[in-house]
Amino acid sequence: MGDVHSAILLICAPDKEGLVYTITEFIYRHHGNILHAEQHIDETRNSFFMRIEWDLSNFTIPDDEILSELEPTRLSLNMDLKLYIRSHRPRTAIFVSRTDHCLVDLLYKWKNGDLPMQIVAVFSNHESTKSLADTFQLPFYYMPVFKESKAQVEQAQLAILSQLQVDFIILARYMQVLSPEFILRYPSRIINVHHSFLPAFSGAKPYEQAFSRGVKLVGSTAHYVTDVLDDGPIIGQQVMPVSHQDSLSEFIAKGQDLEKHVLSYAVKKHIERKILVFANKTVVFD
Amino acid sequence: MGDVHSAILLICAPDKEGLVYTITEFIYRHHGNILHAEQHIDETRNSFFMRIEWDLSNFTIPDDEILSELEPTRLSLNMDLKLYIRSHRPRTAIFVSRTDHCLVDLLYKWKNGDLPMQIVAVFSNHESTKSLADTFQLPFYYMPVFKESKAQVEQAQLAILSQLQVDFIILARYMQVLSPEFILRYPSRIINVHHSFLPAFSGAKPYEQAFSRGVKLVGSTAHYVTDVLDDGPIIGQQVMPVSHQDSLSEFIAKGQDLEKHVLSYAVKKHIERKILVFANKTVVFD
Amino acid sequence: MGDVHSAILLICAPDKEGLVYTITEFIYRHHGNILHAEQHIDETRNSFFMRIEWDLSNFTIPDDEILSELEPTRLSLNMDLKLYIRSHRPRTAIFVSRTDHCLVDLLYKWKNGDLPMQIVAVFSNHESTKSLADTFQLPFYYMPVFKESKAQVEQAQLAILSQLQVDFIILARYMQVLSPEFILRYPSRIINVHHSFLPAFSGAKPYEQAFSRGVKLVGSTAHYVTDVLDDGPIIGQQVMPVSHQDSLSEFIAKGQDLEKHVLSYAVKKHIERKILVFANKTVVFD
Amino acid sequence: MGDVHSAILLICAPDKEGLVYTITEFIYRHHGNILHAEQHIDETRNSFFMRIEWDLSNFTIPDDEILSELEPTRLSLNMDLKLYIRSHRPRTAIFVSRTDHCLVDLLYKWKNGDLPMQIVAVFSNHESTKSLADTFQLPFYYMPVFKESKAQVEQAQLAILSQLQVDFIILARYMQVLSPEFILRYPSRIINVHHSFLPAFSGAKPYEQAFSRGVKLVGSTAHYVTDVLDDGPIIGQQVMPVSHQDSLSEFIAKGQDLEKHVLSYAVKKHIERKILVFANKTVVFD
Repeated sequence: MGDVHSAILLICAPDKEGLVYTITEFIYRHHGNILHAEQHIDETRNSFFMRIEWDLSNFTIPDDEILSELEPTRLSLNMDLKLYIRSHRPRTAIFVSRTDHCLVDLLYKWKNGDLPMQIVAVFSNHESTKSLADTFQLPFYYMPVFKESKAQVEQAQLAILSQLQVDFIILARYMQVLSPEFILRYPSRIINVHHSFLPAFSGAKPYEQAFSRGVKLVGSTAHYVTDVLDDGPIIGQQVMPVSHQDSLSEFIAKGQDLEKHVLSYAVKKHIERKILVFANKTVVFD
Repeated sequence: MGDVHSAILLICAPDKEGLVYTITEFIYRHHGNILHAEQHIDETRNSFFMRIEWDLSNFTIPDDEILSELEPTRLSLNMDLKLYIRSHRPRTAIFVSRTDHCLVDLLYKWKNGDLPMQIVAVFSNHESTKSLADTFQLPFYYMPVFKESKAQVEQAQLAILSQLQVDFIILARYMQVLSPEFILRYPSRIINVHHSFLPAFSGAKPYEQAFSRGVKLVGSTAHYVTDVLDDGPIIGQQVMPVSHQDSLSEFIAKGQDLEKHVLSYAVKKHIERKILVFANKTVVFD
Repeated sequence: MGDVHSAILLICAPDKEGLVYTITEFIYRHHGNILHAEQHIDETRNSFFMRIEWDLSNFTIPDDEILSELEPTRLSLNMDLKLYIRSHRPRTAIFVSRTDHCLVDLLYKWKNGDLPMQIVAVFSNHESTKSLADTFQLPFYYMPVFKESKAQVEQAQLAILSQLQVDFIILARYMQVLSPEFILRYPSRIINVHHSFLPAFSGAKPYEQAFSRGVKLVGSTAHYVTDVLDDGPIIGQQVMPVSHQDSLSEFIAKGQDLEKHVLSYAVKKHIERKILVFANKTVVFD
Repeated sequence: MGDVHSAILLICAPDKEGLVYTITEFIYRHHGNILHAEQHIDETRNSFFMRIEWDLSNFTIPDDEILSELEPTRLSLNMDLKLYIRSHRPRTAIFVSRTDHCLVDLLYKWKNGDLPMQIVAVFSNHESTKSLADTFQLPFYYMPVFKESKAQVEQAQLAILSQLQVDFIILARYMQVLSPEFILRYPSRIINVHHSFLPAFSGAKPYEQAFSRGVKLVGSTAHYVTDVLDDGPIIGQQVMPVSHQDSLSEFIAKGQDLEKHVLSYAVKKHIERKILVFANKTVVFD
């Protein structure tokens, strides 16, 4: 699929007769061949969601004019439209603190071609993952965060992210809470992994909370970051059985395999443009 | 959803530009509002699959003329088309032997409205489930099967099924192997549950086989019946952990919860017309 | 296993050298053959837990003198001891409201011999499950509950439970909150199923809460009832994937299969005397 | 746990009254404090299995004399005994071919302290993982295998393994079939991961087989290697849902996360001495 020259269109709109027809007619008229089309209607809100991908090989509109050609349709149907060209791999920066299992997993999956994106930087408030970034020849920004310097550090981070033209950010166990100002710059474009089955055990030390409550399943959640802590739209969740035999350190060891799995799942869905956000929930197409 | 007057169209065709457009244009032109549309392209075979459901409230073609109106399109695009009207609940007969947990589960889910179908008969080669059929006021056909009478019994069953205008058959732990002649009458319309993770442990006594092999997961598979035993297109599969602590009878007890779950899942997908069969596999839409 | 004449001893004690030895020596000296022995040490509390089951065929102490023979040991080691004779099937009463899927599941598993207990009564605040109780020839107590009569109804229920010598109570989707006074009479002996992955979505309408939060897994939890709502020791939990495609009613349908599974799992563990409670958690032996 | 000076005893024996007593009396008499004790009786074979771990801090027998002190007991009860001192971390060699995800996962879990073993060498028939071994400062043996040289290569491998005093071998996606002579040297001490839910899809190209069969769950199995290909005692198995949407490459990507998880689970159980083998099955204690 990596080599196909294709366009992906994400659509949110009030539901209305003829929506699918209008879009498919546009693609057909300009000689695009549909590769995937998925739609969803949220009946409680009368909202329409669609992801449609088509082959651009014989498409008669140049890539950079597709959106303007669609503009009249967008206006008439009151659509929210996003267009992506598949060959433009999204640019990401990974933020990490000391715990490196998610970073390792992302880097190797990326190297193996399972995550078609461009990693342009690794940011950390600790130096411990520098050698890993070096191994993968990635720029590493060591930026320690203290209470008094936090705002200043975030400004510096944002400046670099902007300069690197980063499309989205992955928090791979980054243990600093980002400010609302920072988050506002990347709405639905910061993916975090929280080490619990949200909304259970939000906030600090979720494994300790889970262990203390005596749950029988340990969980992990990937979600977009919003300005309410651990409350953003959930992208994926997974659990694994635990028992009285498992010490806190075994809760953590089991959970870390989940974190890796759930985070790379969410990143993959994001870069395949399969996620739509509405009402603090997600539509995640298969 | 039960009250919406809607049509469901299942399409298989060689992939070609304009397929989605052609269908959606047809629906739009006749004032249908699309409720669901899912498509899948099997790239290895260049095959196109689609399920599309639309509201018939304002549709300008009478239900019984839709197919003939679509005929020219069908011919030109070489489509395999099936049309269903949602309010026509499919008619089913359940076949069962002695073990009744799947039958019980189906009957109660049906009673609760979770399985929108018409159960028109229960067939069994044992009398033990008669009282259950009685409780639900269902005709019960007790037809014991012996080697020498098998062909004759099947003829009698087929006659009744035909008279009852049965659309599809559920084998809810029916322990008789149906003849190829019988199966041919209901292609992709007989759903069986096999108590293993197929293709492991096909044939007789799958729990005994699994126990003896020392597997760590017990499984269950729902599939359409073909004339090769336990080899038909798989609709759904599920597993549950087992350990050395589990005796054979515990393998069975755990597996039976899976059987119920997997069979009712498959039946629900079938009656929602969400399954397409090709190359001995299934497309099962969400 | 049902026919073995065996004793089960559950032990909680402060951890100390020689505990296992002392118990196994006692059994060996009196010619018991150990069938199962499982122990657990909670290191954070220095607590010792054990379940040991032995064959009584050649045991030299009569069943009803075992505890008194163990008394000196119990005192010297500061043990909390519970003794059960396997052939004495525990007596249970099932409480249910309108939703009957858990009740159906329990009754059929019980009939099939998978739940070796005596069901002595079904209590409900609605009349709808009476015919089901009748089918299984079980006494049915229809006791509607209103705010002003609640205390009085509970007194009546407790009187019947006492008269019926009920050992433990199953809340199979009983939608009334029991008073602390009621619960105090059956400590760690009332099993409830809550239709969420606790501690997420405790309280009312958990499916609605889960749907609204946009979780990607729907869950179910069986736990012992304590006087804090939905906060008692967790016995078992299970989850199933859901997606944006699932309406609230599909959340419920999927969740109900989990509820059945998790509740019958917990009941089975309870009647096999495999659960020990401490610090608001459970030890659940395999 | 890593710092506790403890002994682990694994016992297989014909079941007999007094087995547990005899062992616990021995430990108690010599002032050992039991940390864990788990036993299992296989009733179909009348076999007794036990794992018992005790603190050696105050134990009155030196580590290297424990087995000889137990010798009379062993003889009288016809036991198969294995003794391990926890602080003696087992020595392992990892075999790998080109696909490196399992190797990466093992190395990082090992580095993080989750797998308390000594990795003393990495063997490969390809050079591609050399730099990874270098990063972790591990000796790397590049030994290409061809039909005519296979016996010779195995002799060289065995010589090195012997010299390095390797206790067990991990096949982390090593795509060569070992000879029966090689396997005989490490009975129940070679752990392999097979990328399917065995016994389904044994042999070559399991993902291709699974994809072609149209299964709805992709699986992975860790097992001890015996001289029948993919037929050894199963240690762990896990599955993940797949659908018609998943291409073969997505089957592989999903399965690889399972492989990592299942293999590291099996390795951890092995080094914690929690696995007993009998009748081509395993007892895996929690």
